[in-house]
Amino acid sequence: MRVIFNEELKAVADDLDRMAQGVRKSIRGAGDALLKQDVEAAQTVIDGDIELDALEESVVDQCVKLLAKQNPVATDLRVVVSTMRLATTFERMGDLAKHVAETARRAYPASALPEGAKETFQQMQDFLDETSDDVVSMLADRDAKTAERIIANDDKLDALHHKTFEFALDESEEISRQQLIDVVLLGRFLERLGDHAVSAARRVVFIVSGFDPSKEPSRDEEGSIE
Amino acid sequence: MRVIFNEELKAVADDLDRMAQGVRKSIRGAGDALLKQDVEAAQTVIDGDIELDALEESVVDQCVKLLAKQNPVATDLRVVVSTMRLATTFERMGDLAKHVAETARRAYPASALPEGAKETFQQMQDFLDETSDDVVSMLADRDAKTAERIIANDDKLDALHHKTFEFALDESEEISRQQLIDVVLLGRFLERLGDHAVSAARRVVFIVSGFDPSKEPSRDEEGSIE
Repeated sequence: MRVIFNEELKAVADDLDRMAQGVRKSIRGAGDALLKQDVEAAQTVIDGDIELDALEESVVDQCVKLLAKQNPVATDLRVVVSTMRLATTFERMGDLAKHVAETARRAYPASALPEGAKETFQQMQDFLDETSDDVVSMLADRDAKTAERIIANDDKLDALHHKTFEFALDESEEISRQQLIDVVLLGRFLERLGDHAVSAARRVVFIVSGFDPSKEPSRDEEGSIE
Repeated sequence: MRVIFNEELKAVADDLDRMAQGVRKSIRGAGDALLKQDVEAAQTVIDGDIELDALEESVVDQCVKLLAKQNPVATDLRVVVSTMRLATTFERMGDLAKHVAETARRAYPASALPEGAKETFQQMQDFLDETSDDVVSMLADRDAKTAERIIANDDKLDALHHKTFEFALDESEEISRQQLIDVVLLGRFLERLGDHAVSAARRVVFIVSGFDPSKEPSRDEEGSIE
């Protein structure tokens, strides 16, 4: 029984790792779409989202089957429940990356971003690229240290998000209404990507230590409107 | 065993009903804050959000205990897993209502909404008030018909959301950048509230019928940037 459980848990953990890698790929592709007007990257992110959706479905199904057949308790149960919730978080991150890619595609061949906002968005993107590396490795290694770094770092993304509002409010920036709308929503999407990474990190800490560092994993507590 | 399971499941179902009622209250309060500049209502929504957070935590904890002790299978298992996921959806709806309330409070005593946008937001609010009634009753009655109505109606909210972008893009509307930012984000928050109601409805259909009408419950598929 135990051997079967471990084998089945391994299979679902592999799918979850695959989701994290897929999210990383989507985040990078969305960044290329947004910051380099790479419309092919945009299309790849948009088309690839159904794979993440299918993986989420598969992970949840496998977890439900594990619960039914193996009746895990204690740590094993915590792992299975957290795995389901992580899959949902990753699926949502894929949606957000897709929204970024769609915005970039709509603006193509122009950039969705006005010149004056590009530097801030590049910094947000760099942050998220690094975070998505961390997400992949914390998950592969069940590494609470990396997870805690993701949680601690989130302030930096919030500060950058704040700068996108400062830009949007700056009357000296001559930008169209469409550009202003895009800056506001793109900023929101990237900030939410960071929030979800934090949520995922908290779940990994919970798996590893049994301690939930927040009990509030899905929240975006920072006042998101400035 | 069966009796204990049913009693414990009833207790968690009651907490979930309480969450749905709390969400309804938050949505109405957010609407009063936004459309009537009712700053006390705003504060009540903001302060009340921790209750929804605590209820989510409690529901998930109870479900994990049920899984550990009772090893539910088939329909019972589906109910327990869906209950956990519904709690997370409701918690998120509370966050979104809180964001709306925070925006209204920040603009007080002025309205966060420019005159020309009020009618559309009133219609979105009316829609969400009705939807939140439907969410409460579909949950209390495990009523797939009401759930299906929520799913079918979502197009109406998307169309209203689209109108908020038309407003924001209309150069003849003389509005400040802050107002434009608020219109865009408030529209997004209300649209997401509707998406989560649809997600909740799909989970209820799944509980009742065992058939998942989408397998894609958390998605906001409509291109959210116009």
